[in-house]
Amino acid sequence: MTSADEAPATGVWLVGARGSVAVTAIVGAAALRAGLAEPVGCVTAGPRFAAARLPDYADLVFGGHDISDVSILKQAAELADDGVIPAALPGAVADDLRAADAAIRPATPRAGDPRSARQRISGLIADLEEFRAARRLRRVVVINVASTEPPIPGHPDHPDHWRLADLEAALDRDDADLPASSEYAYAALRAGCPYVDFTPSTGARLPALDELARSVGVPYAGSDAKTGETLLVSALAPMLTSRALRVRSWSGTNLLGGGDGATLADTGAAASKTASKRRGLDRLLGAPVEGRTHIDNVPAQGGWKTAWDHIGFEGFLGVRMTMQFTWQGCDSALAAPLVLDLARLLARAHECGAAGAFTPASFFFKDPVPATEHDEPDYRLANQYEALLSWAPSVAVEPEPEAGS
Amino acid sequence: MTSADEAPATGVWLVGARGSVAVTAIVGAAALRAGLAEPVGCVTAGPRFAAARLPDYADLVFGGHDISDVSILKQAAELADDGVIPAALPGAVADDLRAADAAIRPATPRAGDPRSARQRISGLIADLEEFRAARRLRRVVVINVASTEPPIPGHPDHPDHWRLADLEAALDRDDADLPASSEYAYAALRAGCPYVDFTPSTGARLPALDELARSVGVPYAGSDAKTGETLLVSALAPMLTSRALRVRSWSGTNLLGGGDGATLADTGAAASKTASKRRGLDRLLGAPVEGRTHIDNVPAQGGWKTAWDHIGFEGFLGVRMTMQFTWQGCDSALAAPLVLDLARLLARAHECGAAGAFTPASFFFKDPVPATEHDEPDYRLANQYEALLSWAPSVAVEPEPEAGS
Amino acid sequence: MTSADEAPATGVWLVGARGSVAVTAIVGAAALRAGLAEPVGCVTAGPRFAAARLPDYADLVFGGHDISDVSILKQAAELADDGVIPAALPGAVADDLRAADAAIRPATPRAGDPRSARQRISGLIADLEEFRAARRLRRVVVINVASTEPPIPGHPDHPDHWRLADLEAALDRDDADLPASSEYAYAALRAGCPYVDFTPSTGARLPALDELARSVGVPYAGSDAKTGETLLVSALAPMLTSRALRVRSWSGTNLLGGGDGATLADTGAAASKTASKRRGLDRLLGAPVEGRTHIDNVPAQGGWKTAWDHIGFEGFLGVRMTMQFTWQGCDSALAAPLVLDLARLLARAHECGAAGAFTPASFFFKDPVPATEHDEPDYRLANQYEALLSWAPSVAVEPEPEAGS
Amino acid sequence: MTSADEAPATGVWLVGARGSVAVTAIVGAAALRAGLAEPVGCVTAGPRFAAARLPDYADLVFGGHDISDVSILKQAAELADDGVIPAALPGAVADDLRAADAAIRPATPRAGDPRSARQRISGLIADLEEFRAARRLRRVVVINVASTEPPIPGHPDHPDHWRLADLEAALDRDDADLPASSEYAYAALRAGCPYVDFTPSTGARLPALDELARSVGVPYAGSDAKTGETLLVSALAPMLTSRALRVRSWSGTNLLGGGDGATLADTGAAASKTASKRRGLDRLLGAPVEGRTHIDNVPAQGGWKTAWDHIGFEGFLGVRMTMQFTWQGCDSALAAPLVLDLARLLARAHECGAAGAFTPASFFFKDPVPATEHDEPDYRLANQYEALLSWAPSVAVEPEPEAGS
Repeated sequence: MTSADEAPATGVWLVGARGSVAVTAIVGAAALRAGLAEPVGCVTAGPRFAAARLPDYADLVFGGHDISDVSILKQAAELADDGVIPAALPGAVADDLRAADAAIRPATPRAGDPRSARQRISGLIADLEEFRAARRLRRVVVINVASTEPPIPGHPDHPDHWRLADLEAALDRDDADLPASSEYAYAALRAGCPYVDFTPSTGARLPALDELARSVGVPYAGSDAKTGETLLVSALAPMLTSRALRVRSWSGTNLLGGGDGATLADTGAAASKTASKRRGLDRLLGAPVEGRTHIDNVPAQGGWKTAWDHIGFEGFLGVRMTMQFTWQGCDSALAAPLVLDLARLLARAHECGAAGAFTPASFFFKDPVPATEHDEPDYRLANQYEALLSWAPSVAVEPEPEAGS
Repeated sequence: MTSADEAPATGVWLVGARGSVAVTAIVGAAALRAGLAEPVGCVTAGPRFAAARLPDYADLVFGGHDISDVSILKQAAELADDGVIPAALPGAVADDLRAADAAIRPATPRAGDPRSARQRISGLIADLEEFRAARRLRRVVVINVASTEPPIPGHPDHPDHWRLADLEAALDRDDADLPASSEYAYAALRAGCPYVDFTPSTGARLPALDELARSVGVPYAGSDAKTGETLLVSALAPMLTSRALRVRSWSGTNLLGGGDGATLADTGAAASKTASKRRGLDRLLGAPVEGRTHIDNVPAQGGWKTAWDHIGFEGFLGVRMTMQFTWQGCDSALAAPLVLDLARLLARAHECGAAGAFTPASFFFKDPVPATEHDEPDYRLANQYEALLSWAPSVAVEPEPEAGS
Repeated sequence: MTSADEAPATGVWLVGARGSVAVTAIVGAAALRAGLAEPVGCVTAGPRFAAARLPDYADLVFGGHDISDVSILKQAAELADDGVIPAALPGAVADDLRAADAAIRPATPRAGDPRSARQRISGLIADLEEFRAARRLRRVVVINVASTEPPIPGHPDHPDHWRLADLEAALDRDDADLPASSEYAYAALRAGCPYVDFTPSTGARLPALDELARSVGVPYAGSDAKTGETLLVSALAPMLTSRALRVRSWSGTNLLGGGDGATLADTGAAASKTASKRRGLDRLLGAPVEGRTHIDNVPAQGGWKTAWDHIGFEGFLGVRMTMQFTWQGCDSALAAPLVLDLARLLARAHECGAAGAFTPASFFFKDPVPATEHDEPDYRLANQYEALLSWAPSVAVEPEPEAGS
Repeated sequence: MTSADEAPATGVWLVGARGSVAVTAIVGAAALRAGLAEPVGCVTAGPRFAAARLPDYADLVFGGHDISDVSILKQAAELADDGVIPAALPGAVADDLRAADAAIRPATPRAGDPRSARQRISGLIADLEEFRAARRLRRVVVINVASTEPPIPGHPDHPDHWRLADLEAALDRDDADLPASSEYAYAALRAGCPYVDFTPSTGARLPALDELARSVGVPYAGSDAKTGETLLVSALAPMLTSRALRVRSWSGTNLLGGGDGATLADTGAAASKTASKRRGLDRLLGAPVEGRTHIDNVPAQGGWKTAWDHIGFEGFLGVRMTMQFTWQGCDSALAAPLVLDLARLLARAHECGAAGAFTPASFFFKDPVPATEHDEPDYRLANQYEALLSWAPSVAVEPEPEAGS
């Protein structure tokens, strides 16, 4: 813990701040601060990151946007009812939850919003700057944990999304056609805030926004945190390929309840998600294989996600074999500590001068941002982990004082 | 392919040469030579090993010991009936199978053998030297694929097994108490042959034998090839620990048919095997966890092995989650290409001067030989694979001619 | 076995006679006749049916229609390659396979067939009568094992499909709009042949055809034989309901290779199949539950079908629990003996005067024919089995000689 | 609900009244009485039993013995923490829990108890009679839900356990060698109380005790309630046999936490349990098959039980197939409603004059009591359910007034 003079707190601005993942992250950070929980599931809590000077969990301050006006305290009580967080925890950290709730600004659904994109973006930037000033934050990391957007038709071929100058001109004409997540990314970067795409929504994944991030010296990371099936895929596919076993088919069924189930089941949003899933699989295996990936909405699952994968593969002399796994995880409990990890990592990376795609965070994502558009990201979990571990020592020295600080 | 003058063939001497793994390896090497199969399941067939100057599959020549006198051709026909190898294959490579069969020497079961250990060892060395000379082999790699021995009571505390001088003296007195696999290892090393423990039997895993290997300049590798449950464990446990998830229990049930099932089910041999399995698991997780590992003999499984593992773990804020997998593999088809890989790797390592524990082969084993007795081997599959890949370029240059060749 | 004079053979006319199920049935009947196989998987081979005077397996004579001209012998060889039937069997019963092949008549795909429905039906009747006469068969059972038809739009509300008189008039006008399977059912019944819908195609499941069956005194049975997921559902759902456990969700994923996979995956035909599956489930549970059923085409599965079902249920005091199963079956091996069973049962039922829906056969089907349109069939497997067992003694007496025989 | 004059309440005397199953049953009955829960998992709550005049859930009054002195209220709070019962429930029915707790008498562990068997039995009878009198109960059903006893060496061949007269004489000499559960059964029967063996302990399963039950006109039921793996086995094995599929192997692994796990794992008690499990399986399949059943203690499972079963079977023409299931159930939640069901059923059976083995209750048990020692019980779940349903109408009439009531 540090005094406010030496190292002011780090802000975490959550897009979708009253959703399950965000609320679990806020409750969890408060529980860590209060010594009521251990950092289980927190990747950067381990000794390999001890010298990396990441901001303390106790120094994270939360705010965000949400279209819902159900309070964080109430959402936390529902999560406790569903068994996602311990029953007594929301009450024990109620003050912190109220403080976070007070820092949430209403989000306006795009449909029916009469404002221009420029106006919307200015509003977002103003909210971020007000949060930073009011809480005296050294820096704010923006993390998108809102519902997944459906894929944008025509994207990624929009001619104005390739170069920053074209995007700015299109914004001036108010025909930039940016999805909401990309307006957020633009606003965050312009406000000097690192930006993380925790979902498969477009967010910062446009060449023009990458150019912006580099030009303003701000890192971004994404996309689509892996917390279940894809986490396993990224561990098991390299196992099979390193053994030279020939994968013939990979079939997956995901049963989701909660908000995610409703959003993702058989809609455009699911198409975003399954495309992101299969893309990684194909890359890991070197070629597309037979099989499909399903995402089903099963409200009875509550906050729990069940994934069943069946892998058909061929061994020596053509013998056919199979592997199956069933993963039964609590989505918010898996995702929330990663939100905290990413906030810490991006804050530190920013402090150390990282700009543009922050590739050491690939470990967290289904569809990791490549270093440049010409690079191919590594999808293998263990290799991603080694890359993250290798980054830690590089920031273990005292950073140069930042301009103006 | 090379002429005999330039690069004589490499011998592979299989202890247990008429067992399923050995016969599948012999049939498979013949199929590769004949262009009847692709090297699926062969780790070293890939491009990363292309420059490593490993001996060609076509240049492997097989011999070995077995107590069974059922011919390889007949064993191959049975494997074909069980679906382990294609029905037409034994006939198509019958000449090669007959040649290998002709090079098999009868093994004498220890019980009832009136000879001293020194006499037995001399016999083994003579067999190896005769094989090398008769086939004009540049070098011979000895691989133990015989049935797993029960653990040795008292081992590893036998006072004469720690230093080579003590072992030699004990052999002179004929009270060295070496298990059969260790007599094999001793004989192989004395004959200048790299030795591989494909099973959990003691083999070369005695300090005195490590000393021998170093003193005679011969590499050895082991122990206990991982072809199913442990392969998965070594990929999945690092996934969980890298995500800081707290594993509470790991339970495993293995259903084995074939000879393995009968040998391993509920006997001392199974104790060797499950101890080897749990040891790796504990190391991977950093501490022992709840749960047991069962090995059941289920003859109806034939040559197929089914492993079911159930992992209970805890995530953020104490939420309990589970993962299960079922692996349905053909043991011989998984093991046989690794036998070929290890023969190629150890031959090349020997050629390049490696001596003692050959740690780049850890990737293949449940209980990998550490570099020295003070080292802790790495049990993480992906890291083991990287270590193997890193070794390949180190042998990619033309080796110096060996003395006497 | 009986002499031709006393008890002439029973014909089995297979629609889709060169498909996997048909060929496996023909090979299997030949193997039983030759004493090369035991009747494993044959429901009516047991002692409970010993007195029921079903025709002998040895007395079944096969013919049928198919659009394919690949011979049964060649199809059988492919099944042997895929491991569905023993490698040596097709050769051992080659004469029987050739005899069956000779009795197959080419089927004409509906598209491009210039004939009227009446003309097509006359052709089918002529083929059946020729088969019966040529082989001197006492009776012929027609079994539809052809590819599943997509659902008929507008069906079952076609005004001319409700009453036989209307159907006949519509046939006279050539606008009866019967699917191919229903033309077959009509032809079979008019030819005095019991008819079995082994698939979910419409077949005899039209009120007008039920009327026809009753008027001509011929039994029919169906629909959609259960050989995997639904077989399990019909055993497990009653288990849960008899224990008063509250099923909240039932999710199923079916991975199919072979022809079935291609036909059923994500097309209208799959819609027929999944509708048939969910209908039974809803009836068994008393109400629809959450969850979906997927059928995926995974060619790498070959003739094997993998079904994974996940059931979420609630117990006492609202506790949530789950059950999963994985079924890995060979579709043809499961279906073929049921084809033989149904041939024997329907032949005997016909002999004993049964007409219309033959409900004791419900045990075999996903979507069993109700006794009358006002009845609800029993979907519980054990109750269906008891119903079948109860029928057996009712036909255990010597039947009266049939008119004209 | 009825007035005390017309139909006094029914007592349920639980041996092991402070264990998880007992406490869940007591909490659940209170919740049903208070309208706070629905009778999910209660077999006899359905319409098929509406006319059977079973005692109301609201009329069950609880007492019992336990060696633990941790109060029911405290045990209920722990069950709530483990998620077995809703968090708010113990508080909501606290008065009922306190009332039950007040009726619990301390049990004395056998070891160190200086009393003779006769003295112990007299004490048990006195407790039962006091409970009946104090609560003005019409009748009391004794249900053994205590920890499973290890198998009795020498049993069932003890010469004095076959005839009642011999048993009485042995009790007079104090060398009857009855296990504690059988002393309980003896005491219950002598006190005119129906007795239920909810565990695999010997209890009433001795010929001499059967003779006693018949002579005093009291019914008993057992043994070993099926709530997980065996429930599934009893549904799935008949599915396979009715389809004439040949089961080759059946392997099962049970992971248990809680007290059960500790009691059952790898001790004599587990031997009781697995013997009971395999016996039923063998009977269901008609012959023993390959495979083993494991019970592992995995404390991390808490009150949850995970069973994985793997079944290898053969279909038509020798094709090998497999089925697996995973059952993840909360043991107490599955067992508790059955305790209530059995109390209601045995009370009503007693009221209607049933004496000796009460076979309609076979539906509940792994190892059901046969009608007589010469009978073979039916192990098939669906048939057991039909037998239970058939019994219900037989008690749907007003019974004759009992002597003395």
